[in-house]
Amino acid sequence: MTFYNYPSKLLEQAVREFAKLPGIGNKTALRLVLYLLKQETEDVELFGQTIIELKKNVKHCKICRNISDTDICQICSNKLRDHQTICVVENIRDVMSIENTNQYNGVYHVLGGIISPMDGIGPGDLFIDSLEKRVSEGDIHEIILALSTTMEGDTTNFYIYKRLNKYPVKITTLARGVAIGDELEYADEITLGRSIINRTPFDSTLADRKKDGRLE
Amino acid sequence: MTFYNYPSKLLEQAVREFAKLPGIGNKTALRLVLYLLKQETEDVELFGQTIIELKKNVKHCKICRNISDTDICQICSNKLRDHQTICVVENIRDVMSIENTNQYNGVYHVLGGIISPMDGIGPGDLFIDSLEKRVSEGDIHEIILALSTTMEGDTTNFYIYKRLNKYPVKITTLARGVAIGDELEYADEITLGRSIINRTPFDSTLADRKKDGRLE
Repeated sequence: MTFYNYPSKLLEQAVREFAKLPGIGNKTALRLVLYLLKQETEDVELFGQTIIELKKNVKHCKICRNISDTDICQICSNKLRDHQTICVVENIRDVMSIENTNQYNGVYHVLGGIISPMDGIGPGDLFIDSLEKRVSEGDIHEIILALSTTMEGDTTNFYIYKRLNKYPVKITTLARGVAIGDELEYADEITLGRSIINRTPFDSTLADRKKDGRLE
Repeated sequence: MTFYNYPSKLLEQAVREFAKLPGIGNKTALRLVLYLLKQETEDVELFGQTIIELKKNVKHCKICRNISDTDICQICSNKLRDHQTICVVENIRDVMSIENTNQYNGVYHVLGGIISPMDGIGPGDLFIDSLEKRVSEGDIHEIILALSTTMEGDTTNFYIYKRLNKYPVKITTLARGVAIGDELEYADEITLGRSIINRTPFDSTLADRKKDGRLE
């Protein structure tokens, strides 16, 4: 159902603004706006101001292009991290996902997207030049390509590989295989096939660690 | 997945604000905030300002409590409408839904909720006194109770009925029955039962109007 008759122009404008957000239609937008209307004036002002401030003041790290409050992000300025390993990701959400695993101690490079001719995104639109600069100028030992396993992700991986393989740097990608906790019969053939080809030595300590709760 | 490590305090605050909205979790909030970050600064400022302006400047109609840009809403100030018929609804979304049907030419009264002891909402929290005042002071012929068919809706209907039946006013409710386009076998028994009890005279012009496209 579309609403044509908004009782108030202000309401209509607010709904239109919310409906611009991805995945939010007119009905949801109206629900959100009416919810905000019921809140205290200070809370609504805080909501609006926070968004304006974010856009105005947020920075991108000059080294890795991650979002940051400072010129150099927390990760790049952390001396305890391994600055010789760079994990290449599509966007900052991927940085947060990998950070959440607590399994990675290197630094990142955020491309800002992947090569996608369908969407008109070419290599020039991504931060690949600055990645090459980091590799050519710095003492980098390993580049981990952590992009999606889609056609676009593979294209981008290949493009970066071609750009970087003239430098003395190890280029790796994330392991692909059956997800932990998944039943084999539900895994798709391509994933299952790859996980057979790239099988790893059996780790007898895995069961112990699982029991201890160190894993899972 | 919860994100603990936001790369920026500003980002974290914005995500927290969005996640306060109903039906929006941390992940969706992050997606929306990152989308906003990609937009032009003016667009993001417009977004924030629109919400602040809405809360600051929006009014509630002094007669019917509908949302309005003016002291008296468009509907209440429209002389072509039937001011002797008041449709009582829970919230302004219901006003918009009924307006959308183009089948109602009376005015409204927005209660601002329904009686719900579970949520701590009693008759005193709703605009029932002002409804009684309109009935006792004005020349009102009919009150249409258009609340949800839930326990709370029925309670509120009954309470309003008790308050208003001392006045010479006709009190009606919306017709309940099988929805147009629904197959009988999928209608629930209570609805079907009611629609048999409250059967209406056969309208032989209905088929013609359907053919003309005036209905549907």
